[in-house]
Amino acid sequence: MKKIRMGMTGGGFGAFIGDAHRRASRICNDFELVCGVFDVDYERSKAFAAKEGIDPARCYENVDAMIEGELKLPADVRMQSVSIVVPNALHFPFAKKFLQNGFHLVCEKPMTMTVEEAEELERLVASTGLTFALTHTYTGYPMVRQMRDLVAKGVLGTIQRIDAQYYQGWINSIIHGTDSRITGVWRLDPKHAGVSSCMGDIGVHAFNLIEYTTGLEIKEILSDLSSVKDDISLDLDGTVLLRFGGKLKGVIRSSQVCGGEENGLTIAIYGSKASLKWSQEDPNYLYMLSDTEPTRIYKPAHGYNEKLAEESHTMPSGHPEGIYEALANIYKGTAKSIRGEKFNPGEFPTVHDGVRGMKFIHAVVESNKKGNVWISI
Amino acid sequence: MKKIRMGMTGGGFGAFIGDAHRRASRICNDFELVCGVFDVDYERSKAFAAKEGIDPARCYENVDAMIEGELKLPADVRMQSVSIVVPNALHFPFAKKFLQNGFHLVCEKPMTMTVEEAEELERLVASTGLTFALTHTYTGYPMVRQMRDLVAKGVLGTIQRIDAQYYQGWINSIIHGTDSRITGVWRLDPKHAGVSSCMGDIGVHAFNLIEYTTGLEIKEILSDLSSVKDDISLDLDGTVLLRFGGKLKGVIRSSQVCGGEENGLTIAIYGSKASLKWSQEDPNYLYMLSDTEPTRIYKPAHGYNEKLAEESHTMPSGHPEGIYEALANIYKGTAKSIRGEKFNPGEFPTVHDGVRGMKFIHAVVESNKKGNVWISI
Amino acid sequence: MKKIRMGMTGGGFGAFIGDAHRRASRICNDFELVCGVFDVDYERSKAFAAKEGIDPARCYENVDAMIEGELKLPADVRMQSVSIVVPNALHFPFAKKFLQNGFHLVCEKPMTMTVEEAEELERLVASTGLTFALTHTYTGYPMVRQMRDLVAKGVLGTIQRIDAQYYQGWINSIIHGTDSRITGVWRLDPKHAGVSSCMGDIGVHAFNLIEYTTGLEIKEILSDLSSVKDDISLDLDGTVLLRFGGKLKGVIRSSQVCGGEENGLTIAIYGSKASLKWSQEDPNYLYMLSDTEPTRIYKPAHGYNEKLAEESHTMPSGHPEGIYEALANIYKGTAKSIRGEKFNPGEFPTVHDGVRGMKFIHAVVESNKKGNVWISI
Amino acid sequence: MKKIRMGMTGGGFGAFIGDAHRRASRICNDFELVCGVFDVDYERSKAFAAKEGIDPARCYENVDAMIEGELKLPADVRMQSVSIVVPNALHFPFAKKFLQNGFHLVCEKPMTMTVEEAEELERLVASTGLTFALTHTYTGYPMVRQMRDLVAKGVLGTIQRIDAQYYQGWINSIIHGTDSRITGVWRLDPKHAGVSSCMGDIGVHAFNLIEYTTGLEIKEILSDLSSVKDDISLDLDGTVLLRFGGKLKGVIRSSQVCGGEENGLTIAIYGSKASLKWSQEDPNYLYMLSDTEPTRIYKPAHGYNEKLAEESHTMPSGHPEGIYEALANIYKGTAKSIRGEKFNPGEFPTVHDGVRGMKFIHAVVESNKKGNVWISI
Repeated sequence: MKKIRMGMTGGGFGAFIGDAHRRASRICNDFELVCGVFDVDYERSKAFAAKEGIDPARCYENVDAMIEGELKLPADVRMQSVSIVVPNALHFPFAKKFLQNGFHLVCEKPMTMTVEEAEELERLVASTGLTFALTHTYTGYPMVRQMRDLVAKGVLGTIQRIDAQYYQGWINSIIHGTDSRITGVWRLDPKHAGVSSCMGDIGVHAFNLIEYTTGLEIKEILSDLSSVKDDISLDLDGTVLLRFGGKLKGVIRSSQVCGGEENGLTIAIYGSKASLKWSQEDPNYLYMLSDTEPTRIYKPAHGYNEKLAEESHTMPSGHPEGIYEALANIYKGTAKSIRGEKFNPGEFPTVHDGVRGMKFIHAVVESNKKGNVWISI
Repeated sequence: MKKIRMGMTGGGFGAFIGDAHRRASRICNDFELVCGVFDVDYERSKAFAAKEGIDPARCYENVDAMIEGELKLPADVRMQSVSIVVPNALHFPFAKKFLQNGFHLVCEKPMTMTVEEAEELERLVASTGLTFALTHTYTGYPMVRQMRDLVAKGVLGTIQRIDAQYYQGWINSIIHGTDSRITGVWRLDPKHAGVSSCMGDIGVHAFNLIEYTTGLEIKEILSDLSSVKDDISLDLDGTVLLRFGGKLKGVIRSSQVCGGEENGLTIAIYGSKASLKWSQEDPNYLYMLSDTEPTRIYKPAHGYNEKLAEESHTMPSGHPEGIYEALANIYKGTAKSIRGEKFNPGEFPTVHDGVRGMKFIHAVVESNKKGNVWISI
Repeated sequence: MKKIRMGMTGGGFGAFIGDAHRRASRICNDFELVCGVFDVDYERSKAFAAKEGIDPARCYENVDAMIEGELKLPADVRMQSVSIVVPNALHFPFAKKFLQNGFHLVCEKPMTMTVEEAEELERLVASTGLTFALTHTYTGYPMVRQMRDLVAKGVLGTIQRIDAQYYQGWINSIIHGTDSRITGVWRLDPKHAGVSSCMGDIGVHAFNLIEYTTGLEIKEILSDLSSVKDDISLDLDGTVLLRFGGKLKGVIRSSQVCGGEENGLTIAIYGSKASLKWSQEDPNYLYMLSDTEPTRIYKPAHGYNEKLAEESHTMPSGHPEGIYEALANIYKGTAKSIRGEKFNPGEFPTVHDGVRGMKFIHAVVESNKKGNVWISI
Repeated sequence: MKKIRMGMTGGGFGAFIGDAHRRASRICNDFELVCGVFDVDYERSKAFAAKEGIDPARCYENVDAMIEGELKLPADVRMQSVSIVVPNALHFPFAKKFLQNGFHLVCEKPMTMTVEEAEELERLVASTGLTFALTHTYTGYPMVRQMRDLVAKGVLGTIQRIDAQYYQGWINSIIHGTDSRITGVWRLDPKHAGVSSCMGDIGVHAFNLIEYTTGLEIKEILSDLSSVKDDISLDLDGTVLLRFGGKLKGVIRSSQVCGGEENGLTIAIYGSKASLKWSQEDPNYLYMLSDTEPTRIYKPAHGYNEKLAEESHTMPSGHPEGIYEALANIYKGTAKSIRGEKFNPGEFPTVHDGVRGMKFIHAVVESNKKGNVWISI
């Protein structure tokens, strides 16, 4: 099968997320990297392209040149999709241009800086019919997909409480450092990070994980955020109360100052018949709790799993796959969509997930600003 | 050493909490049960007393008779303390009478029905100089005490976030049963349970655990509660945002409808230098997290622990002690106080903890009623 | 119900195992300690008796005086059972005397120094009809009992492999100390410990746990032992190959020099249909593995457990009970036997378990001495 | 940097291990697959090559044709290395030919069928100076590498006991199936599997893991094996006693009939100062135990790790990498060697590890045949 020709913006030397995208695209083996703008510094970009074995002629000075250059190439040589791994503020303008010129997209989150931009992209995707994948990477884990399918089958009964957490500690050491701490971290700078640090960077993953696994929409939120230090303007920590309509309530807890926490994304979905618990740091274990039966531990590569979970794990049971494979699963689903193959909802997060995420981030910030009041999403 | 002569109200046939108190008092071996009112049904009470080997003459018809009868006995025969394990609404009137007649108390929580009652007991304890222990049992675990001492030593640096959880699922099966479910569970009946089910029964333990381990006072709360079902008037589930003054914030999550959760009390205290995590269901493991060092697992019966933690565990390391031993540790501390021996703060929860708990419960209910607004404690 | 009048030999000041027996007897509440010889030093013994509130007249100078004194007392005052918690070499002579004089026994393990002594005790128990309980404490855990019942029900199919481990590290620090290390630890002295340190002290628990949970007899063993240091004569470490007859094989691994291991007794029983795994340090978790179903976690206090497991846990689920409660369960079963009540096999280990254990220890030592050859048990 | 041109023998449709090698080679990004013999059926081989995008001219009918064809190509087009992922019996003849014709090798284990073959390959590698990597994949995990470096630094003091386990259950369901079970599994057939099933397939990984992490050589072994069923001739289960010279002893336990075990490779190394424990199913957790300090949990992507461990993990901490990344680390080290770059011992297992493994397998089988006696390795 011919590989999809993929371009990339961002992701040059030292950019771990760009490297992750390339690895994921190689793992699933449905893409080949053919061109890109890897760095704002053209020389560095070219050096990087050389290291990656990219045709020098297809290492472009900027996105406009990239579009122009690729469009000149024959259709069977031209790149088909672009992976956008630039800083947040550039996601929207770049995504818009690429869509307007007929390129499929894989875009890092947060998708845009504002809800309006997100909605504009959603309209563009709808009108162009192009594939747009947003890398909420955690939805690529087999056991997250298993959760989604178990909930969809009604195994949990009525959902009664949802509790998601995303705790990290890495900003802790930075904000307590003595040197130039704020300038050193673009995530603390509203110009680059947008309206939120903690919720925009990681809280939104917890939000997405809830909507992905349950198929429910969060209707209203009430947040209480903290900047932790006086000279920081963005949230580094917060709690968000959730309402889903009806009697169902829940909570998202998210923080970047939980010292010693590495990447503590967890979710618990409690139902009238059974409950599910999952933790990102041990992604191959899914716990099903019950009041009347022993707790069950679901693991990948077993016949008892639902279809999508099983297709998302390639090794035999007990051979742990990790986050690169989760991202590869998303690339795999995206490739199916680009090729016009059949795929299932849930194989990759869409532009609509991006719109939902932006609404969440902005509602959270607004609720906090207004004195911790309920805001509709 | 002579044992403290102990009476009991409540705790007859079928009452697991009364049994727990008796076992704990026997484990620490500082008490002997000499009299009581074990049941509202006098015949059943007498039958129970006989089974326990209590002198029939000291199995009383009611609390007034108990006080009168015991006061007639010589001082070196008369009971010295009473363990109150009756339904919540009776805690206050019974406690008041016993204190007024010179008896030390061990009282189940919630201490009273109202804040005013709690404060009246606090004044009575102060004026009588009697010992009053409130059985926030979880503070008897060695590793909870280790947490308290590590925080007090400043090991965590500045505390930046606190997250406590108390999830159970047992009410789940009751509220979804087809039979007389509400009358069947006194905790769902405001007359017996007071203003709250979930927060009054278990959320308050999480509150107490935070204040016990950190030495901090929660200043303000904002709550969102859920009754889960239309025909239930009390909260079975809720989230409480916490403020401690300054920049420190936190959250308590508590629910009785988390199907499959057994007794999921957990706490995480995140500091600028290190963090601590503990879970009641695995009480002998205390995790210290750091951004720069490997996570450490503290366990009981090691020379590296602080003094109170070490005195709270009697077996060699690796021989797990459990909840009865935690309660026995509280009885042990209470005995020291009754005997006038030296003891450390933290060896048993006091009437002041009871006042704090009642304020918390009432603030949580008020915040929810007023539309999820901040309430001072 | 009247308590069983219990005596004790050994267990005075500083003796943790005697304390454990007293606590366990108080937890189950079927015994009261009425007399004893608590220390070879009579003055210390009397001081200890006073602290425990024992009638001074019933604190005896030695075992002979104890038997003589108690036999003079009226039958309804006289002690009924004795708990033997003296050093290993005294178990046999004391047990023999007590049995010959009509007293029930609870005896610490290893039961005797030789197989012959063990068999003599077995005959004495048979001929006297007295109750003899050997404190293989770990058989008192609810989930160990659940294992036994699940195996007995045939849930595992044909057993195909058995693997038990008992790793501790505490001797590690002693043998590497600079001071009088060997004299300081009676377990390293053959005169007091018998023919084996590691296998006699802890390996035998693993042996017992296998026979208890599976109902199978180990037929042959081949061992390889290590004294770790040149100047130590007893085994501190070893591996024992097991044969059960037929095709079934297994292994016991046991060591006292596994630095950092606390009390690492574990067992795994692998069957053709399902498997079970349990670890003493987390005694309330029993794992059932299957090739075709999610792993199940059995916990105490659930309706899905077998009868004996359920009766062995008194708190609601999620309230961890520990090793004292395990020992209390054995005291509880012993009390039933002494009172002539109905009880189930498995409620306490018997003199036959003691005979099996002694045979195991001696076979292991013999196999090693003879150059690691197969020895029948 | 130019990629190494890689060929492959075996690994066509349905071969999971060939897929694993290709993924790993793509993850590290140092190789490109340019040619191969993917299947004994040439048509299927060609179909597979087409799917993978391989030049049809370089999909060969057999290994001889492959060598001949590639040698005709210009040096800068010709394949440089071959990955051998064919059934065990073909490893040796193919490896020999490739080495004799100047190609570097990545070879699946067990390396050969006999010790003699293994030694012949070792001589060939030495005389040709070619790179030979044996895929003991587990040595590619960052925390396994951390173990090796911690031991090498002397952190453990004197090693006192070593215990490794490799338990799987998958053969369980096959041997108890009703259909053609033996013909269905080549691992049960001596012609294809060699002298051993369990020890040859997985026990040897445990053996290698011990020698890799400790740098020690196992000197003597005594084994007891089981075929579990009468009509099976190879071992499916066994225990191997280990001696390392001096006082150090240890054990390897390995089985393919531990129903419900997935891929349970574990190792524990106990030292006089500290101990290390690791489990393949949770590869990112390394436990350091101590008698005097809290247990420490090492995880990847932290500054406290040794150099090789750190270079073996590319994501930030808390983002789990898995088995494909472990294999990719081995491919990465192999690439360094092929290119003549500097690399550290331990970056990939060598032909010498293969010789050691073959000696182990044959010694284990011999010991068992001779009645469980000590055999030197």
